[in-house]
Amino acid sequence: MVPHLITALEGPLLELERRLIDANAEIERWFRLQWQDHVPPFYGSVDLRNAGFKLAPVDTNLYPGGFNNLSDDVLPLAVQAAMAAIERADPGADKLLLIPENHTRNMFYLANVLRLGAILTQAGVSVRYGSLNAELTESLTLDLPDGQKLRVEPLRRVGDRVGLDGFDPGLILVNNDLSAGLPDILKGLTDQILLPPLHAGWAVRRKSHHFSAYSDLAQQFAQVLGIDPWLIDPYFATCGHVDFHAGEGDGCLQDNVAWLLAKIRAKYREYGIDEKPFVIVKADAGTYGMGVMSVRDPADMMNLNRRTRNKMAVGKEGRQTQEVILQEGVPTIEAVDAGNAEPVVYLIDRYVVGGFYRVNAERGRDENLNAPGMRFVPLPFSCPCNLPDRSAALEDAPNRFYAYGVIARLALLAAALELERTAPPALGAS
Amino acid sequence: MVPHLITALEGPLLELERRLIDANAEIERWFRLQWQDHVPPFYGSVDLRNAGFKLAPVDTNLYPGGFNNLSDDVLPLAVQAAMAAIERADPGADKLLLIPENHTRNMFYLANVLRLGAILTQAGVSVRYGSLNAELTESLTLDLPDGQKLRVEPLRRVGDRVGLDGFDPGLILVNNDLSAGLPDILKGLTDQILLPPLHAGWAVRRKSHHFSAYSDLAQQFAQVLGIDPWLIDPYFATCGHVDFHAGEGDGCLQDNVAWLLAKIRAKYREYGIDEKPFVIVKADAGTYGMGVMSVRDPADMMNLNRRTRNKMAVGKEGRQTQEVILQEGVPTIEAVDAGNAEPVVYLIDRYVVGGFYRVNAERGRDENLNAPGMRFVPLPFSCPCNLPDRSAALEDAPNRFYAYGVIARLALLAAALELERTAPPALGAS
Repeated sequence: MVPHLITALEGPLLELERRLIDANAEIERWFRLQWQDHVPPFYGSVDLRNAGFKLAPVDTNLYPGGFNNLSDDVLPLAVQAAMAAIERADPGADKLLLIPENHTRNMFYLANVLRLGAILTQAGVSVRYGSLNAELTESLTLDLPDGQKLRVEPLRRVGDRVGLDGFDPGLILVNNDLSAGLPDILKGLTDQILLPPLHAGWAVRRKSHHFSAYSDLAQQFAQVLGIDPWLIDPYFATCGHVDFHAGEGDGCLQDNVAWLLAKIRAKYREYGIDEKPFVIVKADAGTYGMGVMSVRDPADMMNLNRRTRNKMAVGKEGRQTQEVILQEGVPTIEAVDAGNAEPVVYLIDRYVVGGFYRVNAERGRDENLNAPGMRFVPLPFSCPCNLPDRSAALEDAPNRFYAYGVIARLALLAAALELERTAPPALGAS
Repeated sequence: MVPHLITALEGPLLELERRLIDANAEIERWFRLQWQDHVPPFYGSVDLRNAGFKLAPVDTNLYPGGFNNLSDDVLPLAVQAAMAAIERADPGADKLLLIPENHTRNMFYLANVLRLGAILTQAGVSVRYGSLNAELTESLTLDLPDGQKLRVEPLRRVGDRVGLDGFDPGLILVNNDLSAGLPDILKGLTDQILLPPLHAGWAVRRKSHHFSAYSDLAQQFAQVLGIDPWLIDPYFATCGHVDFHAGEGDGCLQDNVAWLLAKIRAKYREYGIDEKPFVIVKADAGTYGMGVMSVRDPADMMNLNRRTRNKMAVGKEGRQTQEVILQEGVPTIEAVDAGNAEPVVYLIDRYVVGGFYRVNAERGRDENLNAPGMRFVPLPFSCPCNLPDRSAALEDAPNRFYAYGVIARLALLAAALELERTAPPALGAS
């Protein structure tokens, strides 16, 4: 009934994926009940790694920047999910202000903004684009290579409302990850709905808070499935103060790498997995794959050369890395055209709307693929990750993508829980 | 961005469709607010007629029987909508009992049941099939031509719950239109959720109640758009007691035909429409296109021959037609392969999930197409009727289908209002 397409990974589905597909009804019921208690983020994207023996999220982005990489064929699904998201945020909304990143020369990113804007428009709001760039004083029309145009306007703050000239929106959707800090112009908006909330910005968000929430949910979810939570949850640890230039915190890094490698090695022994454990070291706040390294030996942390120290020290927008997360590395067994690949799943409201593979032929299967040389391959059109088919062979794409969709939704639920836990106290709350 | 496909109708979009596409954001906002006050039916299908000068629903089915006619490519959208419908009905549901029609030899219908069951299963409930046929005493496995099997089991009533042997469902979804009467076995279920509610069954439902609710909504909606409501709303009248065999009620029919034709003629004059008005006469309760005739002259009602009287007198399950609805005829300008065609739009919860054309080369453009000789052509895959694209030419399929989706949703909203208005008083209510 569902077209069966070739996945990047051709091997037999692992035992875990079989469990997920067989438990489809229990899983969906569990999610339905969870979403009664937690508010889904407006949108998100989740980087997954499938090691064959383990399937886990490694990064959850609350300002997804790759809508342009989704197949055209999943647009109806994205529009339907966006209708639900807008209805949840504010059924009476008629105008939506979209706040993109400031980098106006990245044509891929601009295509993402236009694609996202088109989805929201089709879902039934008037969309205009406002820039956080203080140097932008009048509207700027950007030309994309395909002939599309994006008109970005300067934000206007009037009292406790933000908008554009002649545009007073009820909804403000941020697609700028706020690495540079929480902008004053977006603070203290009392009558407008700002999504995601400001504390989702990387200026305050921490990956460790996310993975802590994820671990808690993975425990519950694993119990429902009767599986070891480790199969879906990467170990992690943090170092709260690191200065790569000055060498401060090297001891913490080394100790945690050693501790994590030992834990991973024990699990590999338990399952008879013939792999060399590794740990990913990255900034606890930040994105864009900057400042990320793979470590296979605690001693590696002591012998960092200056180039690596420089690379690790600086994140997006020139932020100095101070807090570090160390995360169990999950090798990928997926490849597209001989390049190592990892699935990236896109979600709007509580729905999976599509995804793509991040492919990087220049990187190893135990390395960060979000690096120069990467490219994107859309997931096949008819597989928006919500079509498990028990009557089909387990290797069929709809089944594999269903498993990816489940783990991505678990990460999205973790983001909801994380945002609840990290929310600043409401004004007037005791 | 959206693939542009050829529609059945190649002509320029009519002014009305242009209005609908331009007012996309207002329309969606209006629907969002309406759905705050009304509960969408679990599912439905709407027959539309596009006359070029007018676009209107002519039948709204609350037990849709053509899920098998939808393109495979809209399945993800149907699954996503079904997830919303199940969540709305009962987030904690894990088992769903589907009650199909009794006719077990119609392979098309059985394919519909299996397709619907697959959508619900993928949306995350365990589905089994229970029959209202009292003669079915043990489970029956039906073989479909494509090798699929449908296992239908006898219903079991225990106290105030209904289920199957070893299957106690929280949700019961009826896909049997209950023309034969409201079955005792489904009455008085206090703890289970039965959808649609019993009073949606044709044993009690009346088309005139539906179109009365639709007219009220069309008035409001037309005001939002600044259009004449007649452009989306067919005139209708009723005759409460008709006996075609005995000739009782002929006067009422003749008077109402004359009254409707005069009203239509006046509108045609107002808009300079060069068409011959006609009226559709059909049972106020009933479906399957049985007992339907086109009338162009009041005198036609006096000169019915015995064959026509017999045809009109008997509806589905042998019910005698007693109440009659007379509805303004809307000629279709759509054709597929030289056969006259009308779009049928499928909805789950408040979402359009797809549709198809009903095509009948043996019938005129001013006749009922739901008749022997009809066949079904799925709407193109990427056009689930939620993708208006103002930047594209108006004739492009996504725009035409968006307009169809809007009117179909207005009919679905009318069904919600109709079911509210016709609901039996709750037990214990004063």
